[in-house]
Amino acid sequence: MARDHGGNLDAAQARFGTGHWIDLSTGINRRPWPVQPLSDTAFRALPMARAERALIRVAAEWFGCADDHVLPMAGATAAIQLVPRLRPAGHAAVLTPSYNEYAASLTAAGWRVTPAPDLDRMDGADLAVVVNPNNPDGREWSPLVLAALARRVGLLIVDESFADARPDLSLARSLPANAVVLRSFGKFWGLAGLRLGFALADPALLSPLREAAGPWSVSGPALEIATAAMADRTWADHTVTYHAEAALNLDRLAARAGWRPLGGTHLFRLYDTPDAQAAQDTLARAHVWTRRFPYSDRWLRLGIPGSRDEFARVGQALTG
Amino acid sequence: MARDHGGNLDAAQARFGTGHWIDLSTGINRRPWPVQPLSDTAFRALPMARAERALIRVAAEWFGCADDHVLPMAGATAAIQLVPRLRPAGHAAVLTPSYNEYAASLTAAGWRVTPAPDLDRMDGADLAVVVNPNNPDGREWSPLVLAALARRVGLLIVDESFADARPDLSLARSLPANAVVLRSFGKFWGLAGLRLGFALADPALLSPLREAAGPWSVSGPALEIATAAMADRTWADHTVTYHAEAALNLDRLAARAGWRPLGGTHLFRLYDTPDAQAAQDTLARAHVWTRRFPYSDRWLRLGIPGSRDEFARVGQALTG
Repeated sequence: MARDHGGNLDAAQARFGTGHWIDLSTGINRRPWPVQPLSDTAFRALPMARAERALIRVAAEWFGCADDHVLPMAGATAAIQLVPRLRPAGHAAVLTPSYNEYAASLTAAGWRVTPAPDLDRMDGADLAVVVNPNNPDGREWSPLVLAALARRVGLLIVDESFADARPDLSLARSLPANAVVLRSFGKFWGLAGLRLGFALADPALLSPLREAAGPWSVSGPALEIATAAMADRTWADHTVTYHAEAALNLDRLAARAGWRPLGGTHLFRLYDTPDAQAAQDTLARAHVWTRRFPYSDRWLRLGIPGSRDEFARVGQALTG
Repeated sequence: MARDHGGNLDAAQARFGTGHWIDLSTGINRRPWPVQPLSDTAFRALPMARAERALIRVAAEWFGCADDHVLPMAGATAAIQLVPRLRPAGHAAVLTPSYNEYAASLTAAGWRVTPAPDLDRMDGADLAVVVNPNNPDGREWSPLVLAALARRVGLLIVDESFADARPDLSLARSLPANAVVLRSFGKFWGLAGLRLGFALADPALLSPLREAAGPWSVSGPALEIATAAMADRTWADHTVTYHAEAALNLDRLAARAGWRPLGGTHLFRLYDTPDAQAAQDTLARAHVWTRRFPYSDRWLRLGIPGSRDEFARVGQALTG
């Protein structure tokens, strides 16, 4: 639990004061799907099988796979904790740098973990983990390249937490039998507090995950909200358009501050700065919170500002 | 996942028709704590450490233990899935009859599980599971008796999902170093859809559970609602009083129908009926759903009706 993460805004507030912060330390959409008032039963009753089936139907449509390949879980993170149990502990190759929970979770479960700077260095691993598009640098791989990798490893885990705006990258439409795709709900729909994610895989692979998660693993509010949100294609189209444009805007602002764009996704951008600590502090004094990485003195990651006002504050802090 | 549970109201509706059902198939309070509108961030942001600390403070006060002995989890069921990983698989003694998820979860993790009709039959087990008060028959044990049991087994798990109305039974105030108490939030506060529970134990025992659950395992809405609900002692007092009275009322109704009360808690009652299937069907035709058990042709469990109107419908169905 000593792993470092975004989302630790309370630590920033302790250092730089409370008030109205713009939290760009995560890749969570700051223009969330507009939650409607919930039904009475969403809070009260144990989540019903019918409600879960309704979500699975809508989610399968969104991901482009069969219903029986979809397992809703209490957040992608919940799935990550269970991944090490899909196979007897052995040798895992984990793309690096990337999201740090995989190596931590595998190591804790007795796996030998090798960081892999690219896919070619994963051949022969009992388990391989790729984040696509990758966090934090936005590297991406086509489904064909990943399907080929699946043939060279025991089990392939593809984390598509940031793929909702990029269905062309997703392996969900052509899942190899030895691949598990993990998806996040909270990031694209901007509702990370709900704790919802999905594992997509052959039913035989989902079965141990379902068993380990136990019954009622997803909350009633999550089932109800996500079923409506994932069916709202108009909102999704607007969201992709806004973020494509906004990502370019942010890259322009950063360039004016002398930062070099290293990549990113529709939901965050990574920059090479002269001094990441100084850059983070400058923005923090304007109550804009960002993400540093323990392995780099120069990298700073920013989520996408959610409005003209938010862009104005970031721009002012960056370019004076 | 083929285990049988209450809460499967959709199956009942498929057989007996939809409409306004009174679901007494679970032990979930039908007079839930009145949820207030949630803050904007409860849904949007990743749950913050500060919000979790606030809940831990209030929960520790309610349970009567130290803050560092409290781990919020995504439902007591989530904790049950992790219990088998606290020790290397060995011999587990599980009180029987009782809640069936323990034996299932332990067996799946490679434990040899022995059903134990009482605590004396658990001596020497590597792990012992007791539900106190017990579901479905309401058997109960004092903290002293359980502390003595802890000295005779490797690890003691006490499920206190139905102990909120009976703090005198709780082991939380005097936790042995080799005991884990599991608590449910959804049942007493009537908000099972939220998925929240607690593990209470020595910090050394909580650490692997925290690690296995991963970060942000509890949703933002659950943190926010439970922090307010568990501090509301006036509501809790009224709840205990209502259910004590209502449990007696239900026992009287059942007696008039010729059923023998076998025990129960403030949140459910267990009856010996001449024919459990016939009794369940009779109530189901009046759209009252109840709980049968695969191991008994005579037992029927009813949750506590939540109002005068609900009692009227149950009474009419039972006594014509």
